[in-house]
Amino acid sequence: SRTIRAPRGATLTAKSWLTEAPLRMLMNNLDPEVAERPNDLVVYGGIGRAARDWACFDKIVEALTKLDDDQTLLIQSGKPVGVFQTHADAPRVLLANSNLVPKWANWEHFNELDRKGLFMYGQMTAGSWIYIGSQGIVQGTFETFAEAGRQHFGGDLAGRWILTAGLGGMGGAQPLAATLAGAASLTIECKQSSIDFRLRTRYLDKQAKNLDDALELVKYHTERKEAISIGLLGNAAEVLPELVRRAKAGGIKPDLVTDQTSAHDLINGYLPLGWSVEQWIAAQNDPSQQARLTADAAQSCAQHVQAMLDFHAMGIKTVDYGNNIRQVAFDQGVKNAFDFPGFVPAYIRPLFCEGKGPFRWVALSGDPEDIYKTDAKIKELFPQNKHVHRWLDMARERISFQGLPARICWLGLGERHIAGLAFNEMVRTGELKAPIVIGRDHLDTGSVASPNRETESMKDGTDAVSDWPLLNALLNTSGGATWVSLHHGGGVGMGYSQHAGMVIVADGTEAAAKRLARVLVNDCASGVMRHADAGYEAAIECAKRHKLNLPMIDR
Amino acid sequence: SRTIRAPRGATLTAKSWLTEAPLRMLMNNLDPEVAERPNDLVVYGGIGRAARDWACFDKIVEALTKLDDDQTLLIQSGKPVGVFQTHADAPRVLLANSNLVPKWANWEHFNELDRKGLFMYGQMTAGSWIYIGSQGIVQGTFETFAEAGRQHFGGDLAGRWILTAGLGGMGGAQPLAATLAGAASLTIECKQSSIDFRLRTRYLDKQAKNLDDALELVKYHTERKEAISIGLLGNAAEVLPELVRRAKAGGIKPDLVTDQTSAHDLINGYLPLGWSVEQWIAAQNDPSQQARLTADAAQSCAQHVQAMLDFHAMGIKTVDYGNNIRQVAFDQGVKNAFDFPGFVPAYIRPLFCEGKGPFRWVALSGDPEDIYKTDAKIKELFPQNKHVHRWLDMARERISFQGLPARICWLGLGERHIAGLAFNEMVRTGELKAPIVIGRDHLDTGSVASPNRETESMKDGTDAVSDWPLLNALLNTSGGATWVSLHHGGGVGMGYSQHAGMVIVADGTEAAAKRLARVLVNDCASGVMRHADAGYEAAIECAKRHKLNLPMIDR
Ligand SMILES: NC(=O)c1ccc[n+]([C@@H]2O[C@H](COP(=O)([O-])OP(=O)(O)OC[C@H]3O[C@@H](n4cnc5c(N)ncnc54)[C@H](O)[C@@H]3O)[C@@H](O)[C@H]2O)c1
Ligand SMILES: NC(=O)c1ccc[n+]([C@@H]2O[C@H](COP(=O)([O-])OP(=O)(O)OC[C@H]3O[C@@H](n4cnc5c(N)ncnc54)[C@H](O)[C@@H]3O)[C@@H](O)[C@H]2O)c1
Repeated sequence: SRTIRAPRGATLTAKSWLTEAPLRMLMNNLDPEVAERPNDLVVYGGIGRAARDWACFDKIVEALTKLDDDQTLLIQSGKPVGVFQTHADAPRVLLANSNLVPKWANWEHFNELDRKGLFMYGQMTAGSWIYIGSQGIVQGTFETFAEAGRQHFGGDLAGRWILTAGLGGMGGAQPLAATLAGAASLTIECKQSSIDFRLRTRYLDKQAKNLDDALELVKYHTERKEAISIGLLGNAAEVLPELVRRAKAGGIKPDLVTDQTSAHDLINGYLPLGWSVEQWIAAQNDPSQQARLTADAAQSCAQHVQAMLDFHAMGIKTVDYGNNIRQVAFDQGVKNAFDFPGFVPAYIRPLFCEGKGPFRWVALSGDPEDIYKTDAKIKELFPQNKHVHRWLDMARERISFQGLPARICWLGLGERHIAGLAFNEMVRTGELKAPIVIGRDHLDTGSVASPNRETESMKDGTDAVSDWPLLNALLNTSGGATWVSLHHGGGVGMGYSQHAGMVIVADGTEAAAKRLARVLVNDCASGVMRHADAGYEAAIECAKRHKLNLPMIDR
Repeated sequence: SRTIRAPRGATLTAKSWLTEAPLRMLMNNLDPEVAERPNDLVVYGGIGRAARDWACFDKIVEALTKLDDDQTLLIQSGKPVGVFQTHADAPRVLLANSNLVPKWANWEHFNELDRKGLFMYGQMTAGSWIYIGSQGIVQGTFETFAEAGRQHFGGDLAGRWILTAGLGGMGGAQPLAATLAGAASLTIECKQSSIDFRLRTRYLDKQAKNLDDALELVKYHTERKEAISIGLLGNAAEVLPELVRRAKAGGIKPDLVTDQTSAHDLINGYLPLGWSVEQWIAAQNDPSQQARLTADAAQSCAQHVQAMLDFHAMGIKTVDYGNNIRQVAFDQGVKNAFDFPGFVPAYIRPLFCEGKGPFRWVALSGDPEDIYKTDAKIKELFPQNKHVHRWLDMARERISFQGLPARICWLGLGERHIAGLAFNEMVRTGELKAPIVIGRDHLDTGSVASPNRETESMKDGTDAVSDWPLLNALLNTSGGATWVSLHHGGGVGMGYSQHAGMVIVADGTEAAAKRLARVLVNDCASGVMRHADAGYEAAIECAKRHKLNLPMIDR
């Protein structure tokens, strides 16, 4: 078994920083601190790989090491297939991962090709070499909560409390994200082990002894406007209805209700009412019990959703966090299950309308100080943005780096290129020890078509139109991003999404400054354009404010 | 109703030739000489449009007129959605047409969006502004026959005869294409009107009085090595078995057998044995007769294919021309119907392996003399290529221009950029009256994934992998093509293909020369790469000959 770790420091192994950067980022994706199963080249998200196999990995490294600054390397589903003559302002690497002609775009066909070594699953950032660990899920959840705060509470979550459930792989980010966003939170979780894990890593502050204790803690801290995260051992399908009863009887009411139990998976993901965790685990592994387990779990989800609907009816903000629990309840006869919205249309889309999304950067030096200096620079550049300041402070304090030091920070149109140019200047002056790699998730404003997630319920019904991510990739290639990728499948699987990646290097040169000024504007602006085209007022306003040239939108 | 016609001459309406070119080509696509239904903006192929609607058309024209040479216009399914800052070596226009996330990539969803004015069908060259009329089908058929000649008859079809059927919309190109390729041909057609039409337009030389007459004519002219095209009124399902009997009894044998009746459509496309044309047409329009018609047509197709198999068994080259007749016969119990191959794997793929495909160019001056000069230049550049010489001579004599004068000519890797650079030089010196637009069909070596047509039966089973056309588009964008497009559906419909377009302008400048040298090499080379990756020896050899840098292929 091989251990891969990106080179650190300011010495080049490739011919320039524009080729050194993809080299280090490919390696960083396979760093054991970053990758979930580095031996299989799996970075994250089930089977999301950084290269097709080790032979391909070695050849990519070799090709990047030799690549000139007027050449471009093509990667086809993790395999280096060609090196071509281009020019200095063209990308150094172009990638296409997991793309299939629609009629054949299913898991059966994918698996058949994958088994034969002819294909690879790229996920979003694995196959495009810009995954940087779990900072992403914390930040995404943080932004969701913060946007809820902006929409409903004047931008201030102090003294507010978020009620949710589930402290699993992704759901475990909720208490920390809520704290970072300034809110108190109460998370119901049925497994003591999940609570313990989150207490140990400081994602969760405290476990309540029981419901009364939990409510007292919430009351105490919200009155003092203190952000605290509280866990409660219990079954959400039991606790939520009880909380509704108490609220109706004059008890305290949450300010935001959501849920991250794994209701999308009725065998492994949702503990039914009246079942012990031991019975549940036994039934998961006993096919003869699975039908009853599924039926009971679905029934409990219906009661859980009913309680969420009751909160919703009281005027309390309630959202589905992408775990399909509304559909489960609906199928059980809860006809108005979809009365409350999903989190993307509710909280992420308004950010997308302003070109905001999961902007991120990485210090190629490997030195955490470089990131701290960029953190400080962001604060200096955006002094009025308290939200970003809070995130940066808390992230530095609470989230440890994995692999090359990196930072995620949702910035929007008019901000990203300011940051990128400032970083480039810091590289030029030597304030930073080595160049900075700047990128984003494929889940971003202009880069994805995914009707079950990012483009759910678009205003004009164009959820499935994938011209947009394709144009995004072509535009970023035209602007001079350092690497550009086009993927299919991502987080929602074969057939369900198409999305584009973009990474650009700030190497301190004048040429890089010009590219950054184009690419970091265009990439965001194409998202604002897509939402303006769909009729979102906020996007149309944003486009006007930034004087975007959108021919069919009146200026 | 509006009549659109591209401006002619050397005076610019836009700011430069790089923006004037897409402007004129968009307009040329809608020229009544070129477009099938210009009022509906439909260029060809059913509903393939050049712009979404007239409002979009007007805004595209306006945007192109104002566009600077460091800006890029984005077109989303025929609608101009944004103008962005890029640079001089980036494309001036980027287009994405008809793309849908795979799970929604069907006609129902397409039609729903189309009806609401939210979408457009781009076909291949309609939505990417490089359709130039019916020269294409003649040339494609010509290349198919010529490649058969190269593979089986030492490159010389003189004295050979091609037996086929069907003189319909596309099939009617067969006799002319056969003549241009140097072969004699006998085409069976059951409708006198179809024969008359082809005689009138000089696509067909002569109609035989009967089968004996036809065979005598074939014998007479093949002995003299004369290329002549003969039509015979009759039913292929009757004539072909009779020809088999005669051949077995010592009569003359064809050298190549194929068919372009519309066997893919058993109601409107294939006359059953024993039916008169009048009965056939009546039954087409009488639902109560359609079941019997279909059954009889299928049965006749089986007899037709049996005769083709008999020829095949005699060692005579036999191919399916993409009309599905093998499948029909197979379904009727002809178990070995697929013993003879389809035309793409048989004759087109070997060309693709050498990077050859439907290269084309257009004279922006509007002056036919400019094309004649480029014809002469091609002959001068490739003196040894008799095949190309023959095509150019015959095309000039037999095919009239539609809209702006244009030429199609299949060239391959190592040839296209030579041609492009020479044209650019002719523009520079003033030998040509205005710049030349250079492009190709999306049906080309590196630009399409279409498992039922261009990528049918790939050697390694990667028919459906669409990473390749996506990489092709990204690479051409990186090289500096003038406009680049990504489409879905094309000639085979929603769900069945993804493909990329590329057009580049030779405006006589040094900058254009650099771009042409990159793009016209890379575009072809990416096709050779795709076929080399699939394991085709010819492509691997071609890659080596041209010193392509393909990291996973030994050099
Ligand atoms: N669409 C998105 O972008 C997005 C983002 C984050 C999470 N999600 C969804 O959120 C869900 C959670 O994801 P995860 O990775 O944390 O899953 P997970 O399976 O790791 O965690 C689920 C947790 O819920 C607990 N749980 C189950 N039933 C319970 C009950 N009745 N009461 C209290 N606790 C219960 C489990 O013990 C477990 O700890 C998934 O459905 C996921 O798809 C979606
Ligand atoms: N895959 C490709 O790229 C490709 C290219 C060219 C053609 N094709 C296929 O070739 C076929 C023909 O195309 P088209 O546009 O010319 O169709 P069409 O319908 O216009 O013409 C078919 C002709 O065949 C004649 N015909 C029907 N039955 C006959 C019979 N039993 N004997 C003799 N003549 C008969 C008809 O009278 C008609 O003139 C179609 O199936 C088409 O899909 C495919």
